[in-house]
Amino acid sequence: SINSERLWSRIMDMAEIGEIPRNGSRRLAMSQDDIDGRELFLAWCKNRGYQTFYDKIGNLFVRRSGTEVSALPVVLGSHLDTQPNGGRFDGMLGVLAGLEVLETLDDHKISTRKHIDVAVWTNEEGTRFQPAMMGSGVFTGTLSLPETLATKDSNGVSVSDELIAHGYDKGLPPGNHRIGRYIELHIEQGPVLEAEEKTIGIVTGGQAIRWFNVTLQGEETHAGPVPMASRKDPVPALARIIDLVFQIAEVDMASRATIGEIDTFPSSINVVPGQIQVSVDLRSPDESVLENMQQRFLEGIQTIAKANKHLKIEANCIWHSAVVQFDKDMVDAVRGAALKRDYAAMEIVSGAGHDAFNLARIAPTTMVFIPCKDGISHNEREYASPEHVEAGANVLLDTALQFAGK
Amino acid sequence: SINSERLWSRIMDMAEIGEIPRNGSRRLAMSQDDIDGRELFLAWCKNRGYQTFYDKIGNLFVRRSGTEVSALPVVLGSHLDTQPNGGRFDGMLGVLAGLEVLETLDDHKISTRKHIDVAVWTNEEGTRFQPAMMGSGVFTGTLSLPETLATKDSNGVSVSDELIAHGYDKGLPPGNHRIGRYIELHIEQGPVLEAEEKTIGIVTGGQAIRWFNVTLQGEETHAGPVPMASRKDPVPALARIIDLVFQIAEVDMASRATIGEIDTFPSSINVVPGQIQVSVDLRSPDESVLENMQQRFLEGIQTIAKANKHLKIEANCIWHSAVVQFDKDMVDAVRGAALKRDYAAMEIVSGAGHDAFNLARIAPTTMVFIPCKDGISHNEREYASPEHVEAGANVLLDTALQFAGK
Ligand SMILES: NC(=O)NCCC(=O)O
Ligand SMILES: NC(=O)NCCC(=O)O
Repeated sequence: SINSERLWSRIMDMAEIGEIPRNGSRRLAMSQDDIDGRELFLAWCKNRGYQTFYDKIGNLFVRRSGTEVSALPVVLGSHLDTQPNGGRFDGMLGVLAGLEVLETLDDHKISTRKHIDVAVWTNEEGTRFQPAMMGSGVFTGTLSLPETLATKDSNGVSVSDELIAHGYDKGLPPGNHRIGRYIELHIEQGPVLEAEEKTIGIVTGGQAIRWFNVTLQGEETHAGPVPMASRKDPVPALARIIDLVFQIAEVDMASRATIGEIDTFPSSINVVPGQIQVSVDLRSPDESVLENMQQRFLEGIQTIAKANKHLKIEANCIWHSAVVQFDKDMVDAVRGAALKRDYAAMEIVSGAGHDAFNLARIAPTTMVFIPCKDGISHNEREYASPEHVEAGANVLLDTALQFAGK
Repeated sequence: SINSERLWSRIMDMAEIGEIPRNGSRRLAMSQDDIDGRELFLAWCKNRGYQTFYDKIGNLFVRRSGTEVSALPVVLGSHLDTQPNGGRFDGMLGVLAGLEVLETLDDHKISTRKHIDVAVWTNEEGTRFQPAMMGSGVFTGTLSLPETLATKDSNGVSVSDELIAHGYDKGLPPGNHRIGRYIELHIEQGPVLEAEEKTIGIVTGGQAIRWFNVTLQGEETHAGPVPMASRKDPVPALARIIDLVFQIAEVDMASRATIGEIDTFPSSINVVPGQIQVSVDLRSPDESVLENMQQRFLEGIQTIAKANKHLKIEANCIWHSAVVQFDKDMVDAVRGAALKRDYAAMEIVSGAGHDAFNLARIAPTTMVFIPCKDGISHNEREYASPEHVEAGANVLLDTALQFAGK
């Protein structure tokens, strides 16, 4: 079994990097805080003498070598970047539990046939640079390396600028580092396991995601003297777009719709906005339902555009992550591990996107979930109990050992 | 008559300070660019040997002395700060035309009985620090000096911090500098004069303004796993608030409603916002109509709050600028000056707020408007023609001379 005190104290130590009030952490992808978090992690790895390397999109890998030198590694991993107001578990758990697995094997002097690697994927959150799951997307060929390097944040800083600034630009070509299997431990980020009083979620796959940018172009003018009828004010049409998005999510209980960002320009109390930018996130566990939601959304946008000829309204899909089914044998292995240790477990479909979704396209993959308090994440008050963290890491250990072979 | 080439070239020189693309200027109140604009203006004034001084809220005054040493001055003025995407005329015109009046009198060796001062009021725009017309508000006692000094921008920097940083903290107590009369030249910022093909607007007064901050408090959570029914998402209620605000403005043709700022927090594409902040600007030339609009707005907010018990919704009035009537003799003087010079003129009520509204509460005051292209301002493409600028400055000269006395 893993050393739960060591794992917990590492999670708490990591949370101090980029700490924000109310127990939160802010380590936006490839920011100095994200780099500092990686440095802390690397120091722990080097202390144990593990070999570390990285690739051209900044994904980090740590290896505990196996006896079969040429066999493909079993990879455990997740991410160290966070949301602007992130918590202490989303991402960090999977990385630090991966390291805990390696150290536990060392503590017990257990050697494995296959290498076991821990991966830290670049920019999983997708909040600073879009899309999410960026490092694993490039690694698996879902995203193109040159286009991804050129992606800019809202201040015009590119992924490439940051990789160069932090010395992450001289890595392996992504894909050079081939992997055998992938297992990711994560908090559920939803309310199901807690409500069902389960300790372990046996993740069978993940739902589909589509992201859109909507732009409403009007004309900046003064809030006082200009008559209402002669304004090109995009705000009334914004209300129609909000109504549209939330109607679309009513198609069934499983669908989701979120508007996380609304930016008015120039953002001045006495100026009619000249432009509004809106982000839209639509999800469904059923690919055809999401397809249908997308169609209704884009048709709805056209109807709103036609009713508002004084504006220019455009919607673009900027990301699609398809429905994922995890590998049957690996899912069974997670079920077996939970059963063996008497952890209450249930099957679950992931509502959040994870790097595992990308990895599943190139190698047998699965995930392990543990509950989080009130189903809350992407929030400083995100919390998982030490008992659940320990259970998740033990299931990760057992599943890794089963595929790496003693 | 004024020297129209000199005035025009000064307007263009000022526009280079804080220049932004498409002929715009950005000199947010008390920013370094705003200070640089003041320095340029002061250099022109000192070159002519005019005495300059400032007060504790950073209002700047320039004096061309009259022969009656103890008589109260005739003050011409406006502001040098701009909107984030401001133009070249809003504010600058009144200040630089004021200086042009002083220089014209010097060029023609005309002495006046009363002093003629030019005032540069601090933070007229109200975009960085609320409310608008801040410097003149403190000067006239409408706003309290200590409260105003403590006002912070969205980055937490206070007015006082900036005044100290730029050496503007050692000035006269506001009000120590007493004034006799006030005249402000400004672009109309609306479409009326252009549509009516008039050169001069004889401004009889200004409409009432109320500003509100609305806060919608929900709970940050993940855009994927959390079911729609268990979210505390403030975005659907935002649509109801937008609809409310624009319905309220339909009360009559003269009323105005604007939502210039919408800020979602933490502003991440895959996070349900935990909070939304919305600015609301309501105006009417009829005080009782605006009173009624405010009542309907606050009642509407309560109704929306009741229908959304999972959220905390609050609206606060942060500013009220009452209806203003300018001084009859001064309005007549503007009419007379336009008539004498054969400029096509008409009476008009100001839709924008101006420092003159505050000054009107302590001294006989009036304003002169000139047309601006397409009625557009608070926009880089704001434009006034050299002919209209010249005409406005000549009316300012004649009106100032009438009250200062040769
Ligand atoms: N796990 C997680 O929060 N991923 C971010 C990608 C997404 O689901 O939006
Ligand atoms: N003139 C002008 O744009 N004033 C700003 C104050 C306001 O009317 O909102």
